[in-house]
Amino acid sequence: MSKYAIAIHGGAGTILKSLMTPEKESQYRQGLKDAIEAGEVILKNNGSSLDAVEAAVRSLENNPLFNAGRGAVFTNDGKNELDASIMRGDTLEAGAVAGVKNVKNPISLARAIMEKSEHVLMCGEGAAKFAKSIETEFADDSYFFVQARFDQLQEAKKTDGVFLDHSGEANAEENKKKFGTVGAVALDVHGTIAAATSTGGMTNKKFGRAGDSPIIGAGTYANNNTCAISCTGHGEFFIRSVVAYDISCLMEYKGLSLKEACDEVVHKKLVKIGGEGGLVAIDAKGNIELPFNSEGMYRASLKDGEGIEIMIYK
Amino acid sequence: MSKYAIAIHGGAGTILKSLMTPEKESQYRQGLKDAIEAGEVILKNNGSSLDAVEAAVRSLENNPLFNAGRGAVFTNDGKNELDASIMRGDTLEAGAVAGVKNVKNPISLARAIMEKSEHVLMCGEGAAKFAKSIETEFADDSYFFVQARFDQLQEAKKTDGVFLDHSGEANAEENKKKFGTVGAVALDVHGTIAAATSTGGMTNKKFGRAGDSPIIGAGTYANNNTCAISCTGHGEFFIRSVVAYDISCLMEYKGLSLKEACDEVVHKKLVKIGGEGGLVAIDAKGNIELPFNSEGMYRASLKDGEGIEIMIYK
Repeated sequence: MSKYAIAIHGGAGTILKSLMTPEKESQYRQGLKDAIEAGEVILKNNGSSLDAVEAAVRSLENNPLFNAGRGAVFTNDGKNELDASIMRGDTLEAGAVAGVKNVKNPISLARAIMEKSEHVLMCGEGAAKFAKSIETEFADDSYFFVQARFDQLQEAKKTDGVFLDHSGEANAEENKKKFGTVGAVALDVHGTIAAATSTGGMTNKKFGRAGDSPIIGAGTYANNNTCAISCTGHGEFFIRSVVAYDISCLMEYKGLSLKEACDEVVHKKLVKIGGEGGLVAIDAKGNIELPFNSEGMYRASLKDGEGIEIMIYK
Repeated sequence: MSKYAIAIHGGAGTILKSLMTPEKESQYRQGLKDAIEAGEVILKNNGSSLDAVEAAVRSLENNPLFNAGRGAVFTNDGKNELDASIMRGDTLEAGAVAGVKNVKNPISLARAIMEKSEHVLMCGEGAAKFAKSIETEFADDSYFFVQARFDQLQEAKKTDGVFLDHSGEANAEENKKKFGTVGAVALDVHGTIAAATSTGGMTNKKFGRAGDSPIIGAGTYANNNTCAISCTGHGEFFIRSVVAYDISCLMEYKGLSLKEACDEVVHKKLVKIGGEGGLVAIDAKGNIELPFNSEGMYRASLKDGEGIEIMIYK
C-alpha cells in the first residue's frame, strides 16, 4: 500500500500579519484544519483522492471565511456567482461549472457534471437547470449572506473597484490584491491524484466575468503521470498562462521535478507578466509544493504518518 | 519584410463526399475563399495577424453555412448560444466569451473583452451587458434563424440527441459527429501570429454547455515563440487534453516542429482517448499544418506569393 497525502489552499494575496487579529488568525487556521481533516479521513480509510479533494473543498465552501460557496463575495448586482472545477488524474476526466447561483457546494456540481453528463463545462442558468435535474442541494440567498462580504461590496462600489479579495479587514487597496479561491490536491493509497478548485470570484464583479477556477488546464489539472494542481490568484493571468497544465508539461516534456516546475511557473513566468497568486501541487510520489508569489497564502498540507502543517504567511 | 500566411477552418467531422451535392460543395468552397481573402487583404497591406484572424472569422460567422454567428445551431430551447475566443502571440493577451446570445459577431466581442476590459472571459447575460456597454452590434432572433438549423433541432429532439453537427444533409447518426466551429490562424509581416475561434456549439444542447472554443489553452492559443492554434472537434476531449497549449508545449519544451507536435496531439493523443476533430496551426516562420482525425475538415490556407488552397475531404 502506498502512502497518501493532501494539500489545500484558502486563497492567496496581501495577507499581512500586521492586519490580522489573533482571533481571526485562529479561525482561519481552524478552517484549514477542518478542511484537510475532512480529506484525510477519506484517504486513511483507503478512499479515493477524488472523494478527498471534494470533501476538503466542500468544507471550505461551507465556511463563511473563505471566498467559495457560502462565503462567496458579492457581484455588482448583489448576487453570488460560483465557479468550480475538478479533475481526476487516472482517467483525465474533468467537470466544471461557471457562474452558477444558489448551489450550496459548487464542487459537487462540478463532479456531477463530470460523472452524470456527457459534458465538461456548464455555465450560468443552464448549469443550475442541470443541477436541479440531479437533485443538487440548493440554498437561498440568505445562506450566502455574510455581513463582511456585503460590507466589502459597499466599499468596492464607493470607488467602482473590483476586488479579488476574500477578507474584510484590510483597506480597499489591499483588498484588491487578495485572491479568494479554495482548492485541494491529493494522492490516495491507490496511487491516483486529483485536484479541485472553487471560488466566489471578485467582489463587485460585472459582466459574468470568470477567472481560471472553472478552466481545466488553467486553474485545475490532474494527471497521474505528472501532477495535480489547484490555483488561486489573479485569474486573467492564470488563464493566459495556462498555469496548471504548464506545470504538468514542464514535468512531462522537459523532465523537471514538481518543485522545479512550480518554481519556474509561479516565481518566474507569472512574476514576469505581473500574475500574482499561488497554487497547491502534488505528484504521484506524494511530493507536495505550495508556491506563491504574493504576501501570503492560506494553506495546509499533510502526509501519511506526519502531522498537519498549517501556514498563512511567507 | 517577412512573408505573411493564413489558415482557416469551418469545422471537422464526418463530412463525406458521398453525401455532398456539387452545389453545396461549391457554396462551402466559396465561403472558405471569401473568409481567407478577408484575412489576406489585411495581411498583404501590412495589417496585423489579429485583424486578419478576426476578419476571416467574421466572414465565416456571417455565412449561414457555418456553425458560428448567423449560422449557429439551435439549443434545446430554440436559442443560439455563441462562444468565441481570440489570442495574440506577441503579448499573450486573450479574450473570450461563452454562452452569449444575439451578438452578431462573437469574435469581435471576444476581442473587445481582451482590449476594453480587465478580463479574459465573460459568460452569458453578463457578457451581453458588457457588449451593450461598448456598442457591439446585436441582431435579433430572425437574423439567426436558418431553416436547415431549425430542421436539425427538430431532428435532434426526436431522439433527444445532442448533435455536434453543422450540416443539414446527413442523417442523425452522422450529424452527431460533425463539429461545427470556425477558426483562423495567421502570421503577419511583422512576425506576429494570432488565433481566433467561434462556434454556435451543439444542436439541441442543454444546460449551458460550453466546449473548448471559449477556452484559452484548449480551443485557442497563440504565442510567437511557438504557434497559433484554432481547434474544432468534440470539445469535451479537447478541454481535457488542453489541445492548443499542448501543441505549444511540445514545441517549447520538447523541441518538436509544428508538424511533429500537431501529429502527436491530433493523430496520437486525441485518437487514444476518442477525441475526434482537427485544428489549424501556424508558427512564426509561416509553416502551416491542418491536421484532423475525422473524415473531413472544411479548411483553406494561403501563403504570401502562393495561391489559396481549399480542401474539404482527406
